[in-house]
Amino acid sequence: MNRTLRSAAPLVGLVAALGFCSISHAADPLPSWNDGAAKRSIVKFVDGVTRESSPDFVPVPERIATFDNDGTLWAEQPIYVQVFFIIDRIKALAPQHPEWKTQEPFASVLKGDPRGITAGGEDGVAALLVATHSGMTTDEFSRQVGDWIATAKHPKTGQPFTAMVYQPMLELLEYLRANGFKTFIVSGGGIEFMRPWTEKVYGIPPEQVIGSIGGLKFDIKDGRPALFKLPNVVLNDDKDGKPVGIQRHIGRRPIAAFGNSDGDLQMLQWTCYSPGLRLCLYVHHTDDKREWAYDRGSHIGKLDKGLDEAKLRDWTVVSIKDDWNKVFAFE
Amino acid sequence: MNRTLRSAAPLVGLVAALGFCSISHAADPLPSWNDGAAKRSIVKFVDGVTRESSPDFVPVPERIATFDNDGTLWAEQPIYVQVFFIIDRIKALAPQHPEWKTQEPFASVLKGDPRGITAGGEDGVAALLVATHSGMTTDEFSRQVGDWIATAKHPKTGQPFTAMVYQPMLELLEYLRANGFKTFIVSGGGIEFMRPWTEKVYGIPPEQVIGSIGGLKFDIKDGRPALFKLPNVVLNDDKDGKPVGIQRHIGRRPIAAFGNSDGDLQMLQWTCYSPGLRLCLYVHHTDDKREWAYDRGSHIGKLDKGLDEAKLRDWTVVSIKDDWNKVFAFE
Repeated sequence: MNRTLRSAAPLVGLVAALGFCSISHAADPLPSWNDGAAKRSIVKFVDGVTRESSPDFVPVPERIATFDNDGTLWAEQPIYVQVFFIIDRIKALAPQHPEWKTQEPFASVLKGDPRGITAGGEDGVAALLVATHSGMTTDEFSRQVGDWIATAKHPKTGQPFTAMVYQPMLELLEYLRANGFKTFIVSGGGIEFMRPWTEKVYGIPPEQVIGSIGGLKFDIKDGRPALFKLPNVVLNDDKDGKPVGIQRHIGRRPIAAFGNSDGDLQMLQWTCYSPGLRLCLYVHHTDDKREWAYDRGSHIGKLDKGLDEAKLRDWTVVSIKDDWNKVFAFE
Repeated sequence: MNRTLRSAAPLVGLVAALGFCSISHAADPLPSWNDGAAKRSIVKFVDGVTRESSPDFVPVPERIATFDNDGTLWAEQPIYVQVFFIIDRIKALAPQHPEWKTQEPFASVLKGDPRGITAGGEDGVAALLVATHSGMTTDEFSRQVGDWIATAKHPKTGQPFTAMVYQPMLELLEYLRANGFKTFIVSGGGIEFMRPWTEKVYGIPPEQVIGSIGGLKFDIKDGRPALFKLPNVVLNDDKDGKPVGIQRHIGRRPIAAFGNSDGDLQMLQWTCYSPGLRLCLYVHHTDDKREWAYDRGSHIGKLDKGLDEAKLRDWTVVSIKDDWNKVFAFE
């Protein structure tokens, strides 16, 4: 008996040391967040749903958190990253399409006018999407995205696009996962455009990425099966398409949702119009020095109705200027 | 030093004991499988992709295994379980639809003729699906399925449908998960029909269930958001729809796939027409005593082209009669 007790001492010490490490780390899981109402609301929520004695305790399998991507996890100014990809793909494909020199919206894109991409309205954008996002196999498209994102640079900062991710949001993803959450991306961007890099950049595997979806056709040629990308849109994963995408892919209702625009409003409503402790959070772009400042009047990432509703319902609104002591890791 | 060594002894003993338990369990992770070529092919595959020194080693995140449901994980005779659900729902809804007494295919269903459900061809089946699978919210539908499956019984065995699952396949699911696999269902059945019970019965959570998908519409009424089930079909997750469903939901190509019919053939091709060690397995229904015997001539679970291809490509074919010493846990 005595021997057992004595010999267990180092084990107790080990457990204590591990416990200490854990507590030490947990002391500030969100170091890039300033102390303030936003940070406190996050920590209070996580404590409330994970502490077993809490009346709001949620079992691990139900801890589903959904994140918008553009403007929520990485920068979306001056235009969406996927639009830069489209421009570069149009340029790369131009030699095979001499007619594009005079045909809009291709001509504007080739002349280097980024606004040309939207000048033709929805039809113009659709034409550019069809030209760059269909006709190839999913494997080929994945390689095109991977090759592009490995070298493309943001025009303002000169950083790789994958460095234009928000350090506080990376900490938040990690903090939630450390507390038993499964983290999903729910973006209006193309699902196949995100999957090649989300695991490396965000720690989110392909099966936890939800986005806009195009048609696919399975075919076998010369004994090699492939999925060909078709030009039709199956799901526009924006606005009221977001709860639809969430239900199709996850089949559970999130208990936490993170966005930055009116395109995320329905996802936040689906999450937070619900009994029990929930967290709905808007990233408000208020920092024109370190990032950008835009909301109600912006045509990219417009945040108008969502801002009103956040105030009305007491959702968390993060001011980048005031709540984040670091925006990008490269700062 | 001496004290540390001595005092570590119980810890070593504990580790050894845990190791012993683990080895003891691993000695036969598939007790309902007879020793034979099928079982050996499974164990050989798992060893090949999980042993780090193996030339076929696959990292954990890439260990994706996809399982058909009807006829692969649970029985599909004399008709699909979902058809029994449809019949019972039509009966439950009949008082609100007096016109169904004379209107096919409803009239046949109400008269208790299960073949009436298919007598009207695809249009008849579509009418029954629309009547029972659309118009309600996803939450309401989930409750209807949950209430039904808690009490409904199989007409031949008198067992709950959730007991009509194959014990050897439950062991296989568990064996793969214990070896780092993520297990998915990829079924032609309705995704919302399976999700209410797959976690409890198979250990597969809703977000790892892929099935046929209908339209959804997000709406908020009286401050309560809901997703309404629409009558249109978005994905028929059968035959060449299976690789499409896999790509949309998972975004990775499986390294193991399990089916029982020609409806699973494209999923197996997508999985096994690939370099590297792969496992494609067909459950062949050969036991008319303990289960059912059917293949090339059956209109449910027809296995014809798949059987030829399995022989040609040396895929694993499980004979229920010869390879399983137990079919159902209740035996």
